[in-house]
Amino acid sequence: MWMAKIITLFPDVFPGALGHSLIGKALVNEQWALEITDLRDFGIGSHRQVDDTPIGGGPGMILKPDVLDSALSATMHDVNSPSSEWPIIALSPRGKIFDQELANQWAQGQGITMICGRYEGIDERFLSHSRIEEVSLGDFILSGGEVAAKAMLEATVRLLPNVLGNAESPMSESFHNSLLEYPQFTKPREWCGLSVPEVLLSGHHEKIAQWRHNQAETLTRHRRPDLWQRYTSQGGIES
Amino acid sequence: MWMAKIITLFPDVFPGALGHSLIGKALVNEQWALEITDLRDFGIGSHRQVDDTPIGGGPGMILKPDVLDSALSATMHDVNSPSSEWPIIALSPRGKIFDQELANQWAQGQGITMICGRYEGIDERFLSHSRIEEVSLGDFILSGGEVAAKAMLEATVRLLPNVLGNAESPMSESFHNSLLEYPQFTKPREWCGLSVPEVLLSGHHEKIAQWRHNQAETLTRHRRPDLWQRYTSQGGIES
Repeated sequence: MWMAKIITLFPDVFPGALGHSLIGKALVNEQWALEITDLRDFGIGSHRQVDDTPIGGGPGMILKPDVLDSALSATMHDVNSPSSEWPIIALSPRGKIFDQELANQWAQGQGITMICGRYEGIDERFLSHSRIEEVSLGDFILSGGEVAAKAMLEATVRLLPNVLGNAESPMSESFHNSLLEYPQFTKPREWCGLSVPEVLLSGHHEKIAQWRHNQAETLTRHRRPDLWQRYTSQGGIES
Repeated sequence: MWMAKIITLFPDVFPGALGHSLIGKALVNEQWALEITDLRDFGIGSHRQVDDTPIGGGPGMILKPDVLDSALSATMHDVNSPSSEWPIIALSPRGKIFDQELANQWAQGQGITMICGRYEGIDERFLSHSRIEEVSLGDFILSGGEVAAKAMLEATVRLLPNVLGNAESPMSESFHNSLLEYPQFTKPREWCGLSVPEVLLSGHHEKIAQWRHNQAETLTRHRRPDLWQRYTSQGGIES
């Protein structure tokens, strides 16, 4: 069973949204597992200290390497998979940007361990010594890694076998072929004077597929020149 | 008071992580407010239907434009701010990519309304008719917009006045000047045979600042050529 292990100072925020919807059902049905390590349990002394001031000065607090190392060792004690099958990552705005390709890669492994930073950061020696890969949710700053971890897990878990029923469809979505998704319409056919495009009502499957493909191309070209460039450099993909 | 209004089928997942840490304290202290609209309350008929099949075929379900419109109207009834001060966004992988600049922009307004999609998508007519701006957390697919909304709110709320104390520091972080953050170190000075870099122990503030600036530049150049290019095209920024 695919497993996510999370090291955090805020164990209560899990599973949160990951306990709802199809992903939450899959958690209950043991199609994946979630294990939380409370970093505070590995804190030092009677105050269970987990952080200290940055050496060299500056604001904020830095998570201590010794505390993180103890927590990681305890968390990984029952994991025998190689790092290619079970990555250990730290959520950090300095990391590699998370995307669908990384979600696919993670979903094909045995599991993942995620370290949620808080405060100003994590001691650099822990990251290099333990070969932690830093991964970023995007170019913005969060207070901690918890919400980022949830987003990455949601994207990954829904790709596991049998997690999605027919209610969702990983293959017809944005990014599976470097294009944004085409516009969607449902009932009523007329709403606020706006009609559903005629072609979608035609019942002509080939024309519908072509219209959707054209729309996806147009949307991608206008909104995301970067994706469009990647798409065209691959020679496009037929609808 | 800055306010976030969320339209969702999963009201229970809020505030979740947004109720913890400094952002959660700020919520309790009324430095910002969170209001949830349950989309199901605006569903049609005895089953409170909110979605229907895509016209033209395909898997999944599409959120109905009439239901979304009723929910949005009710949610916005007490908002008088112009859209520049109170954006209405839908979380969608087809949207503009969220970043720190957008968080800054939102934090300077009066509030925001976020529509969390679920299932295959949202009827296109609702998006165009109501001039909803689509915003994406990144190039990956989530099951719904809830976790994305939380991530964007966390990034935005922490920029509001008085939300962060001295425990965090918005100005010394990644992205404030297009550079990734320099490596951080804390006690112990020796750990696993690894020392804190000598310069950080020197007490020489100017040398420390220069070392950190150089490290931030090196890190950005290696890890994020795209950010590095933006930085150098601006002529760099002194440490």
